[in-house]
Amino acid sequence: MSTETISVKQDIRTLRQAAAAAFKKRMQEQGTCVIRLLSSPGSGKTTLLEETAKRLREHHSVGILVGDIATNRDAERLAPLVTTAQITTGGACHLELPLVEKILPQLGNQSFEFLFVEDVGNLVCPASHDLGEHLRVLVLSTTEGDDKPGKYPKAFRTSQAVVINKTDLLPYVPFSVDRAMADARDVRGDLEFFPMSALSGEGIEAWCEYLIALRDKTMAEATGPVSDMD
Amino acid sequence: MSTETISVKQDIRTLRQAAAAAFKKRMQEQGTCVIRLLSSPGSGKTTLLEETAKRLREHHSVGILVGDIATNRDAERLAPLVTTAQITTGGACHLELPLVEKILPQLGNQSFEFLFVEDVGNLVCPASHDLGEHLRVLVLSTTEGDDKPGKYPKAFRTSQAVVINKTDLLPYVPFSVDRAMADARDVRGDLEFFPMSALSGEGIEAWCEYLIALRDKTMAEATGPVSDMD
Repeated sequence: MSTETISVKQDIRTLRQAAAAAFKKRMQEQGTCVIRLLSSPGSGKTTLLEETAKRLREHHSVGILVGDIATNRDAERLAPLVTTAQITTGGACHLELPLVEKILPQLGNQSFEFLFVEDVGNLVCPASHDLGEHLRVLVLSTTEGDDKPGKYPKAFRTSQAVVINKTDLLPYVPFSVDRAMADARDVRGDLEFFPMSALSGEGIEAWCEYLIALRDKTMAEATGPVSDMD
Repeated sequence: MSTETISVKQDIRTLRQAAAAAFKKRMQEQGTCVIRLLSSPGSGKTTLLEETAKRLREHHSVGILVGDIATNRDAERLAPLVTTAQITTGGACHLELPLVEKILPQLGNQSFEFLFVEDVGNLVCPASHDLGEHLRVLVLSTTEGDDKPGKYPKAFRTSQAVVINKTDLLPYVPFSVDRAMADARDVRGDLEFFPMSALSGEGIEAWCEYLIALRDKTMAEATGPVSDMD
């Protein structure tokens, strides 16, 4: 009986991994770079998206899916800036790919150059689910404490970049950017860090440049290196 | 098949409710008031416990169980103050009663007057689990935004009190205590609020007085009202 249970679990995991890989490839082929934001509630994901969208939309098409347990508050903030749809989970603690794929058509038929997916505010459960994103970004705010990477290791281990947000509050909180980065590097050595204040705009330009370079790289991988075509 | 599945789920729920009620009664009969803290990561639960324990231990016996996914960092902070044990979930996103009951003996044979249980930092999943606590307290920090009650309704709906922590940062963050309280009251009308800065100590005395009064009330309920015994 227990063997049977394990086998079913593995089948589901394999199916989910295949679905995430297929979604990722489909997005890449249509020119869309998918960036997913993961964090505690209140770390500033939505403010970060507001400020990122304001800059990227000048030269790029941007779509946003925002996940929440309840309310459309985040979509109401973002919709005036770029095409946005709200995913309301009705209680579930994280997004899953079938829900993302169900809501995606609400953004219209556009192939956005950037598609941002803001997960439910939760530093635990979303880390276990692959939404087929090209980049997983963890947003850690300075008010949460610099001891969080070691305490929530999976969220940091499965991300490629960390935004250290709310640096404008550094004079008032017991938080060391160096300590947070060292603690995060103990979990995953190759993390990229972006200290910033999404509210004041400090540090946001470097972040946007990184996203544009990442999209270029992702799309180059989709078409394959030119040298290989000789 | 689906009927069978539902019936199993209900059985498990009934068993869990009975176990939580039994634990609550047992604690009450031995004179222990169980207070559980629930919040996002980094809202200041451990600092709140440090400052609460410093004050309560002058006239009361205090024990603390701290839950985390990984590390003993919280227990290391609290152990110099009062008897403390760390519950490490190894990945699980919330505490459950069997784990609490398994670790409880590490506090020794003492019947504490106050037993604090700090759940894993997560504003979603812990709200669905009853640990047999006499009081569930939600800690919301001013840096998380005053829109959180409506976005995470279950955590607020299942709590009886809300600590609004980090009021020392109010001059620097876009947060209105009144808006947060109004939003929380829309979710649950009879919530008690304790605005405070656990770091500076402002507001902590009223909170400690509330806990002492709550314990007196809980213990009076255990022995039954005197007037009924006439």
